[in-house]
Amino acid sequence: MTPKKNLRQQLHHIIFDYDTIPAKAFDLVLIAAILLSVMVVMLDSVAAIHGAYGQALYGVEWFFTVLFTLEYIMRLYASESRKHYFFSFYGIIDLLAIMPTWFSIFVPGTQYLLVIRFFRVLRIFRLLKLVKFVKEAEFVKASIIASGRKIVFFLFFVLVTVSIIGSLMYLIEGEKNGFTSIPKGVYWAIVTITTVGYGDIYPQTVLGRTLAALLMIVGYSVIAVPTGIVSAEMAAMHEKLEAGRNHGESCCQRNARDPEARFCKICGRALE
Amino acid sequence: MTPKKNLRQQLHHIIFDYDTIPAKAFDLVLIAAILLSVMVVMLDSVAAIHGAYGQALYGVEWFFTVLFTLEYIMRLYASESRKHYFFSFYGIIDLLAIMPTWFSIFVPGTQYLLVIRFFRVLRIFRLLKLVKFVKEAEFVKASIIASGRKIVFFLFFVLVTVSIIGSLMYLIEGEKNGFTSIPKGVYWAIVTITTVGYGDIYPQTVLGRTLAALLMIVGYSVIAVPTGIVSAEMAAMHEKLEAGRNHGESCCQRNARDPEARFCKICGRALE
Amino acid sequence: MTPKKNLRQQLHHIIFDYDTIPAKAFDLVLIAAILLSVMVVMLDSVAAIHGAYGQALYGVEWFFTVLFTLEYIMRLYASESRKHYFFSFYGIIDLLAIMPTWFSIFVPGTQYLLVIRFFRVLRIFRLLKLVKFVKEAEFVKASIIASGRKIVFFLFFVLVTVSIIGSLMYLIEGEKNGFTSIPKGVYWAIVTITTVGYGDIYPQTVLGRTLAALLMIVGYSVIAVPTGIVSAEMAAMHEKLEAGRNHGESCCQRNARDPEARFCKICGRALE
Amino acid sequence: MTPKKNLRQQLHHIIFDYDTIPAKAFDLVLIAAILLSVMVVMLDSVAAIHGAYGQALYGVEWFFTVLFTLEYIMRLYASESRKHYFFSFYGIIDLLAIMPTWFSIFVPGTQYLLVIRFFRVLRIFRLLKLVKFVKEAEFVKASIIASGRKIVFFLFFVLVTVSIIGSLMYLIEGEKNGFTSIPKGVYWAIVTITTVGYGDIYPQTVLGRTLAALLMIVGYSVIAVPTGIVSAEMAAMHEKLEAGRNHGESCCQRNARDPEARFCKICGRALE
Repeated sequence: MTPKKNLRQQLHHIIFDYDTIPAKAFDLVLIAAILLSVMVVMLDSVAAIHGAYGQALYGVEWFFTVLFTLEYIMRLYASESRKHYFFSFYGIIDLLAIMPTWFSIFVPGTQYLLVIRFFRVLRIFRLLKLVKFVKEAEFVKASIIASGRKIVFFLFFVLVTVSIIGSLMYLIEGEKNGFTSIPKGVYWAIVTITTVGYGDIYPQTVLGRTLAALLMIVGYSVIAVPTGIVSAEMAAMHEKLEAGRNHGESCCQRNARDPEARFCKICGRALE
Repeated sequence: MTPKKNLRQQLHHIIFDYDTIPAKAFDLVLIAAILLSVMVVMLDSVAAIHGAYGQALYGVEWFFTVLFTLEYIMRLYASESRKHYFFSFYGIIDLLAIMPTWFSIFVPGTQYLLVIRFFRVLRIFRLLKLVKFVKEAEFVKASIIASGRKIVFFLFFVLVTVSIIGSLMYLIEGEKNGFTSIPKGVYWAIVTITTVGYGDIYPQTVLGRTLAALLMIVGYSVIAVPTGIVSAEMAAMHEKLEAGRNHGESCCQRNARDPEARFCKICGRALE
Repeated sequence: MTPKKNLRQQLHHIIFDYDTIPAKAFDLVLIAAILLSVMVVMLDSVAAIHGAYGQALYGVEWFFTVLFTLEYIMRLYASESRKHYFFSFYGIIDLLAIMPTWFSIFVPGTQYLLVIRFFRVLRIFRLLKLVKFVKEAEFVKASIIASGRKIVFFLFFVLVTVSIIGSLMYLIEGEKNGFTSIPKGVYWAIVTITTVGYGDIYPQTVLGRTLAALLMIVGYSVIAVPTGIVSAEMAAMHEKLEAGRNHGESCCQRNARDPEARFCKICGRALE
Repeated sequence: MTPKKNLRQQLHHIIFDYDTIPAKAFDLVLIAAILLSVMVVMLDSVAAIHGAYGQALYGVEWFFTVLFTLEYIMRLYASESRKHYFFSFYGIIDLLAIMPTWFSIFVPGTQYLLVIRFFRVLRIFRLLKLVKFVKEAEFVKASIIASGRKIVFFLFFVLVTVSIIGSLMYLIEGEKNGFTSIPKGVYWAIVTITTVGYGDIYPQTVLGRTLAALLMIVGYSVIAVPTGIVSAEMAAMHEKLEAGRNHGESCCQRNARDPEARFCKICGRALE
């Protein structure tokens, strides 16, 4: 093994794994840096802060950009398949997150695109692996996936309802009441069925209000459906987990606990 | 069999079934055409787009109208009972969806009624049959039906609450605060209990606000009821499905499926 | 038996029972009359309709008032304990519902109080007994009662949260941003935690918005609690009902279905 | 035992326990005093009431301040570890709740800080111990704790979503539509995903509205997740409680409890 290969392997371990102290430290420092850099972009977007500390924040921004550029180069260098990383979701985000600052040298104003950096916040999910939240995350993910098809069907239903009622409202209310086009009507219907209700557009005719009231009551009852789906799915998963947990207990003991068993179902021994 | 009868049978198969490639293709093309035509109606309703591309969109509209007219004639021709199709829900929608464009030749402006075409989007539910979502759709439908009577009772309760509180608010707040009539008060109560909360009408007196706060907290707690109903119903259905899978198996067979069991726990016989 | 006593008994049966045709008819006619009279009060509150048909609606109002007065007298006459009926919840509502019209002869304007008549709509729940919805109503009621104490605890928690955050917001936002008093701050907190969000009052300072965002996220997560309570309660009740349904099935048959039973638990006969 | 020591012990019992009549009475009187004093602060914040009764309310405020000061001294005196009480959560609140009025002698206006007294309302949870609500409170608490990690994961997901979409909206909508900074965009996203929807800020461009509609539908489906978590957790706890009730019984005993059983279904022995 050449020393260079060793360096690359070491880097790969630090960057992509999370089971030794340096690997964990890298993840923690990276997440802290991402959160700080995002906070800087956030603060800089506030006019008053930009006015007072704009210069300083610009410096900090360059600091993080150089840091993330180094990180990007390291990742590219250390990854097993560079092509794979380059075209991966995170690879693209990592690149896009540093571009705007570099581009701002040539084209002023591109800095504005720094919000892309917010997508790097997704790396925070790596934290879950550090703090042993994986089981919980897996549970939530698994039950969402298990409910997936049913929820897609439900969203299907919502979208059809929303298109039909949105277009009817355009017909009923018309431009003078803010329903200037069918897409706006559909937007209103989504705002209403999800019970967000901004109040930027709302029906003003009697017929429109009646239809709106109907839509609200439907939306109110219909929210029960995805909740019911996920609840039932999670309850089912709970039972499976519970069953799994008992698995592997010393055989007769477990069977003895079953009030109805007369023979151990594992070893066939008669139970006392 | 005469060739003509054969043609009709073939058409019937293509239009009403979905188990061969041409039948599937017909459904897919039809749904795409419906979605496109609906999108055209949508876009045309936006003033800016209508101004720029109105003429072109008008052409596309006629294209789809002719297409759907042909489809309608084909359906009428191919259906087993023409009368039955003509008076069916989809038959009426299919007809209404093409009428406005044809009528616009004689009476300008009827085109406005094209939004009826949005109801054709309901045909999209046929897609479920193509992508094998039927089981999920059935599950959701079955649990909604099973919860049906309980949810009707719940809506009953909501409607009574809403009428009483809506009329009280009319009394308390009066015209000067936007509660110009009892129906408007009831509309406000629906907007509030469903947590939509547009903010077009809201209480301004102390007593009105107190009553509104009460209604909100009731609405907030009460949303739990339909959700609980559907959740419980779905959990029950889950168990039934699970039980159905086990049902009908004999004693040893059932034990044999249990990965831990080596002896039947009922009769003590060794399992293979 | 004197004929007079017979008449009273007959009236009692017709008014208070619902198991013969005249008793059912009385209930149906009464509910129809209540709904119609309420609709008249509703329509009369709309300025435009009052202007055009005010005179006619006034006549209809008198018609219903005389009708309900006769009904009230009949109820009082036929009830087993007149005192009991007079002071019962429905007795008071029945009386209050007819008073405003009679009083309007002497004091003009009391008619305004006719909205009290809306409480009579509660009689509609009698319908449930007619259409055999009792079981569903009982199920919903029973699970709400079973969840009752837990939901009271939850509302307790909500009220404490809302008072503390409402008073803090009054301190943070102050009068200039609409939080003119602590009660108003509490009202805002209720509007927010229940996700109604009218938008009549909303935070405008950075600190206020941060606290509001916190309250929203708490409210969003916390809504899960009452729903979870009712769902769990309903699922438990479902299982009890299911168990109850199997009860009374011919003994050995039921035991034979239990895959684990070797002896009928009722008659002790060995099962095949 | 010196009499002084006895007094301290007695005080400790009355203040910190709740199983004798004087101890219960102390709790009830204290909670009533807290609620009354909070109500006085509330009313005094209403300008009209302050104008009319400000002087009287100021007197009442001093009365409660002296009362709570006495209570604080008694608590400090009677507590087992004075240091522990002094630095405990309730100890700090008890002290802060009386400070503003005393300080207002020297520095006018500090009275404004009296809202801190609202935190004393938390003592109301002691009531639960008096009215035997403990079991329900424990049940709700236990299931919230059991769901805790899953809900934290869920909130994590919500926060990431809200940061990314909030920053994108700032880019899309810009200052002219009210999205003056990224923090404001994030605030808007929280208001939207929780379905509060004040309507103080809302998207006005086509792209912004599309993204908002997406966020709403996600929020609408995603609310199902915490609800599902808590529901499943509560259902599991229900079953555990139920199982706990049955746990530890021997075979025939358990069968004997079954109202239908006359013979033990396991061993076939006749039950008494």
